[in-house]
Amino acid sequence: MSKNKQLKIGLFGFGVVGEGLYRVLQQTPSLQAELVKVCIKHPRKKRNAPEVLFTTDSNELLNNEDINVIVEVIDDAVAAFDIVTTALRNGKAVVSANKKMIAEHLTELLALQKTTGQPFLYESAACASIPVIRNLEEYYDNELLQSIRGIVNGSTNFILSRLSEQQLDFESALRLAQEAGYAESDPSLDISGRDAVNKWSFLLTHAYGIITGPDEILYSGIEGISQNDTQLAAQKGQVIKLVAQARKLKNGKVAAAVLPQFIKQHDPLYTVKDEYNGIVIESGFAEQQFFYGKGAGSLPTASAVLSDISALGYQYRYEYKKLYKQTPSQLSDDFFLRVLVSYEGGSLLNRIDFEWVEERFSSTAHNYFTGVIHSSKVKDKTWWQQKGVSLILLPDGILDPEDINLYRPRNAEAQWAEVFTY
Amino acid sequence: MSKNKQLKIGLFGFGVVGEGLYRVLQQTPSLQAELVKVCIKHPRKKRNAPEVLFTTDSNELLNNEDINVIVEVIDDAVAAFDIVTTALRNGKAVVSANKKMIAEHLTELLALQKTTGQPFLYESAACASIPVIRNLEEYYDNELLQSIRGIVNGSTNFILSRLSEQQLDFESALRLAQEAGYAESDPSLDISGRDAVNKWSFLLTHAYGIITGPDEILYSGIEGISQNDTQLAAQKGQVIKLVAQARKLKNGKVAAAVLPQFIKQHDPLYTVKDEYNGIVIESGFAEQQFFYGKGAGSLPTASAVLSDISALGYQYRYEYKKLYKQTPSQLSDDFFLRVLVSYEGGSLLNRIDFEWVEERFSSTAHNYFTGVIHSSKVKDKTWWQQKGVSLILLPDGILDPEDINLYRPRNAEAQWAEVFTY
Repeated sequence: MSKNKQLKIGLFGFGVVGEGLYRVLQQTPSLQAELVKVCIKHPRKKRNAPEVLFTTDSNELLNNEDINVIVEVIDDAVAAFDIVTTALRNGKAVVSANKKMIAEHLTELLALQKTTGQPFLYESAACASIPVIRNLEEYYDNELLQSIRGIVNGSTNFILSRLSEQQLDFESALRLAQEAGYAESDPSLDISGRDAVNKWSFLLTHAYGIITGPDEILYSGIEGISQNDTQLAAQKGQVIKLVAQARKLKNGKVAAAVLPQFIKQHDPLYTVKDEYNGIVIESGFAEQQFFYGKGAGSLPTASAVLSDISALGYQYRYEYKKLYKQTPSQLSDDFFLRVLVSYEGGSLLNRIDFEWVEERFSSTAHNYFTGVIHSSKVKDKTWWQQKGVSLILLPDGILDPEDINLYRPRNAEAQWAEVFTY
Repeated sequence: MSKNKQLKIGLFGFGVVGEGLYRVLQQTPSLQAELVKVCIKHPRKKRNAPEVLFTTDSNELLNNEDINVIVEVIDDAVAAFDIVTTALRNGKAVVSANKKMIAEHLTELLALQKTTGQPFLYESAACASIPVIRNLEEYYDNELLQSIRGIVNGSTNFILSRLSEQQLDFESALRLAQEAGYAESDPSLDISGRDAVNKWSFLLTHAYGIITGPDEILYSGIEGISQNDTQLAAQKGQVIKLVAQARKLKNGKVAAAVLPQFIKQHDPLYTVKDEYNGIVIESGFAEQQFFYGKGAGSLPTASAVLSDISALGYQYRYEYKKLYKQTPSQLSDDFFLRVLVSYEGGSLLNRIDFEWVEERFSSTAHNYFTGVIHSSKVKDKTWWQQKGVSLILLPDGILDPEDINLYRPRNAEAQWAEVFTY
């Protein structure tokens, strides 16, 4: 059998991930990968590597014919896009960890892979150490993939774990996450759900052949989650998690969302705590499968980058099979959600067209109701993203439009009007 | 990109797995796989498929030039070997689910793949629905794979779950497993640990490039596990599982064993109940990862067979990278185990050379002690496989020979002599 390709690497970024990679490469001779040059932004920082490795001139990597692999582990999504596209055009294989950049430029990156014929791998961009992209790519046929659900953002999961286990308020839990290094000093990308939906948008390509962008997917974050909500979850023996999910509907389209959700104890996602990520895949005949691992942190990320580098040695590339070789699915804009809406005070909410309402609770401090609503009415975020309001998906909260009349209670119409006359 | 290869399948076996496959293939046109012929043993059984599909003559499949894929899902390991080797020699790709056959003939099957150039896939033979072979093959470099541990036999796991959750005795739990269809009428392959070590032997090839056979690996089953043992586990907040494991030692060799083991609550394997399987992989920098899914049953097995068929459409083959493209590891015969030995009655045991003993307990009905012993002394099974005796690995029970003196207590020599003078 053929020998590995000799990899000559140009690395952008020498932060925790970059430096981790440098060390691992030294300890892994079987990879046959040589780090030729590292491009950095600040030349004066002290670094634990020979000075001759470093440059601040990106051309020394991108135009270097000795380098056949560009690895990019910088934060700046704009600069990353520039590096990745130039490298592909210059005939180099590329490994990237930049989920924001990939989510925002997926169409161009797909086209560039086609025209240049160069591989572009980014396993570390989703769920860090869990090989989710490659498993979706290689193992689950589109037609058999019923659903995929996951906790794909470690820092929000850390915060939610602290909220539920230590009854902290949101601010204290966030501070703890920042101190532990699981949340950025500007945590808005994480807690708004934007980071999760970025990842979810390109995971949908590998899962179902769907090409979409983060703004086309219904999503929210965890800012609205109050202690009332976590206490309610605890009373039910459940926890609240930020869950990204996609489910094949009976009409063949895919309902996708990234929303906080109540999770029951027997759900494998219940066990995913702190900075961990988990993915539950349901496929025809295999039933439920669960993948679990560290989703954040420098070393798990470096490890996934390393596995991509290793794969390049075997000429591995994503084939985007669901997109190019099978019949790609389409994103649905017509499904229903069973949600809990929780809010402070009295007559806060407008009259919203819920299909029906199932439970309601009110007290002087806290109110909530549960009901079923069409996805398009949740996509209009104005009413439920006000301060003091939260919208949380119930377990099994995505309902197929073809089944909706089976779920609808007989006295549905009478009920919903009542709730909104506070 | 290139289109799928048109697959023309000859299927051996039309039991639950075979019939499941037949149905799924009809529902999955994207696979571009056509079932040309099915070879069965008993022509008179009533079957839910057109009669023209069936034959009892294996040559109608093996010598049929229209058939380019042979799928074998029969029980008989001897017949399976004959089918698989003939098919490979006749230039056909082969998918098999027969772990016993693969474990016993791995060397020949590796050689035949080389000489014929034909792919031979068998994802369903280990952990059914969990894509463990392909993940080991594609994702974890040998040098970085610190350990792999797993529950790889669903029927023993079902029995152990019943022992610990319902305090059943062994016979009743076994009967329950048989009634639920998780254990064969002759369950000895499962409960002796033989089925688990069969799987483990070829998983070691994909994990570490080790070529070995089931008899070279230290293994036992669960027949010796008594209610005293499961009660002791419960007192400690632990459970007993039949765990297959392999761990890279400091000298680069791999310590492997399939033994019952006490599992702590925070271990992901603790959550693997009933007929499920689970695999925990520890690799450099990725830390701990966990894969979980149904390990037994016709549909999970059919699903894994199907994913192999699908992979053949993309010219996928195992490259045995750890064996052919990296430096393969060797199996170690020099490591230590920290175990609990439990036994009924008084002076049952011979004087065994334990390195040292840590705890001991005796009562009129039940005795146990814990201690550290060299692997070679456990491989001599005569003393601990007597009736009424069980040997159970403690958590983190595999000790590196280079570390053994760090663990050794000062008064080690005095202690061990005492225990064996009952």
